[in-house]
Amino acid sequence: MTLTGNMLIGQQAITGSREAIRAINPATGTALEPAYLGGTGEHVEQACALAWEAFDSYRETPLAARATFLETIADEIEAIGDELIDRAVSESGLPRPRILGERGRTCHQLRTFARTVRAGEWLDVRVDTALPERQPLPRSDLRQRQVPLGPVAVFGASNFPLAFSVAGGDTASALAAGCPVIVKAHSAHPGTSELVGHAIARAVKKSGLHAGVFSLLFGSGREVGIALVTDPRIKAVGFTGSRSGGIALCKAAAARPEPIPVYAEMSSINPVLLFPAALQARGESLAQGFVASLTQGAGQFCTNPGLVIARQGPALDQFISAAADLVQRSQAQTMLTPGIFQAYEAGVGSLLELTSAQEVAAGVRGNTPNQCQTHLFVTQARDFLADAALQAEIFGAASLVVQCADDHEIRQVLEHLEGQLTITLQLDDADLESARALLPVLERKAGRLLVNGWPTGVEVCDAMVHGGPFPATSDTRTTSVGTAAILRFLRPVCYQDFPDSLLPTALKHTNPLQLRRLLDGQREVLENA
Amino acid sequence: MTLTGNMLIGQQAITGSREAIRAINPATGTALEPAYLGGTGEHVEQACALAWEAFDSYRETPLAARATFLETIADEIEAIGDELIDRAVSESGLPRPRILGERGRTCHQLRTFARTVRAGEWLDVRVDTALPERQPLPRSDLRQRQVPLGPVAVFGASNFPLAFSVAGGDTASALAAGCPVIVKAHSAHPGTSELVGHAIARAVKKSGLHAGVFSLLFGSGREVGIALVTDPRIKAVGFTGSRSGGIALCKAAAARPEPIPVYAEMSSINPVLLFPAALQARGESLAQGFVASLTQGAGQFCTNPGLVIARQGPALDQFISAAADLVQRSQAQTMLTPGIFQAYEAGVGSLLELTSAQEVAAGVRGNTPNQCQTHLFVTQARDFLADAALQAEIFGAASLVVQCADDHEIRQVLEHLEGQLTITLQLDDADLESARALLPVLERKAGRLLVNGWPTGVEVCDAMVHGGPFPATSDTRTTSVGTAAILRFLRPVCYQDFPDSLLPTALKHTNPLQLRRLLDGQREVLENA
Repeated sequence: MTLTGNMLIGQQAITGSREAIRAINPATGTALEPAYLGGTGEHVEQACALAWEAFDSYRETPLAARATFLETIADEIEAIGDELIDRAVSESGLPRPRILGERGRTCHQLRTFARTVRAGEWLDVRVDTALPERQPLPRSDLRQRQVPLGPVAVFGASNFPLAFSVAGGDTASALAAGCPVIVKAHSAHPGTSELVGHAIARAVKKSGLHAGVFSLLFGSGREVGIALVTDPRIKAVGFTGSRSGGIALCKAAAARPEPIPVYAEMSSINPVLLFPAALQARGESLAQGFVASLTQGAGQFCTNPGLVIARQGPALDQFISAAADLVQRSQAQTMLTPGIFQAYEAGVGSLLELTSAQEVAAGVRGNTPNQCQTHLFVTQARDFLADAALQAEIFGAASLVVQCADDHEIRQVLEHLEGQLTITLQLDDADLESARALLPVLERKAGRLLVNGWPTGVEVCDAMVHGGPFPATSDTRTTSVGTAAILRFLRPVCYQDFPDSLLPTALKHTNPLQLRRLLDGQREVLENA
Repeated sequence: MTLTGNMLIGQQAITGSREAIRAINPATGTALEPAYLGGTGEHVEQACALAWEAFDSYRETPLAARATFLETIADEIEAIGDELIDRAVSESGLPRPRILGERGRTCHQLRTFARTVRAGEWLDVRVDTALPERQPLPRSDLRQRQVPLGPVAVFGASNFPLAFSVAGGDTASALAAGCPVIVKAHSAHPGTSELVGHAIARAVKKSGLHAGVFSLLFGSGREVGIALVTDPRIKAVGFTGSRSGGIALCKAAAARPEPIPVYAEMSSINPVLLFPAALQARGESLAQGFVASLTQGAGQFCTNPGLVIARQGPALDQFISAAADLVQRSQAQTMLTPGIFQAYEAGVGSLLELTSAQEVAAGVRGNTPNQCQTHLFVTQARDFLADAALQAEIFGAASLVVQCADDHEIRQVLEHLEGQLTITLQLDDADLESARALLPVLERKAGRLLVNGWPTGVEVCDAMVHGGPFPATSDTRTTSVGTAAILRFLRPVCYQDFPDSLLPTALKHTNPLQLRRLLDGQREVLENA
């Protein structure tokens, strides 16, 4: 298709009237056609009205139909072919194989949620049957299911133009839950957003759903975003981005007459803890694994390892020296946007000015626009404990090694950490007891704990947690990746003494959806399951 | 035991130093001994430090031990005997049978959560086993469980001195989840609170748990409450009370450097929808059921039916006339506190001043202090739609009948409603299709929908939802009654490639807790379950 620069309000292409957004190829600094004129409060109003109209019918779509809809979105995205890949590469500066992989991940994610929708466990059906003879009072027939919250506003992320964007995890899980979605596209990749937005709109049409199930808006300033979050018909928000951006949305949502949940995935430095035996036995290979994870995708991952914690001594010195060597040889890589590049440079610049942290290595400097130069710093635990600035996230390929005098200081550093998405443990058998002693602290600090891996690379599966205590996310009770993400957009409703004909299908006496209900305190085992 | 007027910080009895709180027997207006001196910020600091110390060990108590602890609390409460019943009757003005029933409910609730803890489904264990050969990338072994959020602050409610107070639903569900609890007692029943607090403290000691698992504070002003909600070691808040109180706690929690969830159950007028065939066939008996529910416990229930919605006409006129007759004959009942009585009188007074609502009946006036006189009002749908004041909760036995011209106006009134805990449908077979057409609206407006019952009386079971959209509660994703209440105090953690010896028991390969895990996308069926 020819990119039009239009937004999508349901099936209608609408031209904005605010400042133009134009994608920039960060590898060249060239602005890309077409221009995307920003939306207004009036466009938000139209999209919300349409989403609200769609809600009551969409939320009662049969599970199979909703699952097929998600699969159709995946099919439609794949059907765009090279045009999508080419545009996403141009808009992001990311290598083609990465974008191909990300398309695969995005479509896999949609199909995984389709499977989840069909299985229906998220309905969490609970039935307590009537006890008319109970003394002193009879018990009513009580049945609970989960229903969707309502229309959801999704803010696309810069660093995953497909997997955390228009048809990314937030959209897929909200649609799976039965919520219409209005996406505010990230201004870094409007063309990619338009292509994917049309794929979803085609799937809506093919599936015979109400047009309001999906809309796509653009906007460079706060107007569209704040109007979305404060519209009374929006009942939840999904966001992946900066801490300041996430907190601003949380504040706007909390100040509404009816506050709503905001699921903001914001900032994390993903500490890596090197235990003594592992460090002693395989410092060199740890350095290789670490630098590979640090520099992957120019460090532009939420799970990038921005902090290393270990006990000082010769083994750590050798690790630092090996890592420094690898960092020095690491090639510069194009960052996603000029803004992200400038923020990275500013973050590194601030760290360079501090006397409490010392640079031990810098990578090859870039010779094209917006290229990320890798940086490795070291500091002492006492300095880290004294200066909160040392744990500020620098989005990009920069990391800081915290040298601790002893186990006590390691524990202090861990306790001092803000909430994280991940914490990684590099350990050998001899380290197991030390690791076990730290587990309670680690569990309090992060949503995912890894042993002998690296935090970059987030599997889309049932057991994944991409979440964590504030400020990693705004709501530590949830995950934004994996099938449990659907739970963010649901609320329970109880039906008391309903005649069977009035009960929703999931709750009917004959259990037509063959759900494993919690029935009178026992989990049902199904004959033919 | 002799009441001491002390607080409990862990196992230590501590005397406060702020303004004295003294319970008042609302039936006589007499102040009761002893005086309870209010706590200070320093007491909050001590209780939070102790709770934080207790957290890491308490949250890893084996499920059986934690369940036994909850059962021991129930046993200890029952062991207090008549002293507890007498004191609760004196402090609340509630009849003795009601307090006896409430003790039964409280202990049943603790034992129900013990059963829930043992079953372990709340751990929501999800396992995705490693796929080392997968292309293009291998999959790690990923395992998820739920862990408790951290110490929880619970604010006791005035209207259930046992079941929603010191050892009530919030405390029981937080302890079940593995969270230490600090209760701020409601100033209306400090003696009842002290007795129950000591029962919990004895159970803590008998169970060999860390003393910081439970503390009990008093305080008449904002000092203790705000200090609790803003202490960095408190990770969630449970509250049942007024809308203004709940919103103040939400704002304080949202303004923290690390915001935390507040589960505030606040205000609801629990609309009752009378459908034409039911109204025609059994108006008289509907009036009886309605007035019985309205006046039960002097109307001091969160689920009290404060609004009736029906189509105008002779059948509704007869219902109103029958209800008015019953209201006129309804006896005055002592309210919980002088403050609640005064607020009720003020609320009724405001309604009496409005020209848009007309009083159709008032009950027998009280001749002892603090007695609630029943009131029944009527209004027209257009007036109800025009004036938000008509849907403000009046806590007590007052209700308003909204007369609608047609089905369209009924739908308008429903859409105009704020979020509710319950909506009740009185319907006969001929009303089924009208009811079905309204279900989408009703589900959006309330956490529990009832057919041909009355909203007062909230069963403690798996399927109960005592929650609902704002302002019924601050978090519509949850319930504060029933076993699903435990989910409020949990967050997921994922363990990636952990050696089995380092995994928590719930996640070990051999599944020693015999949990029905979500294993590689399938729900496990256990051989011996």
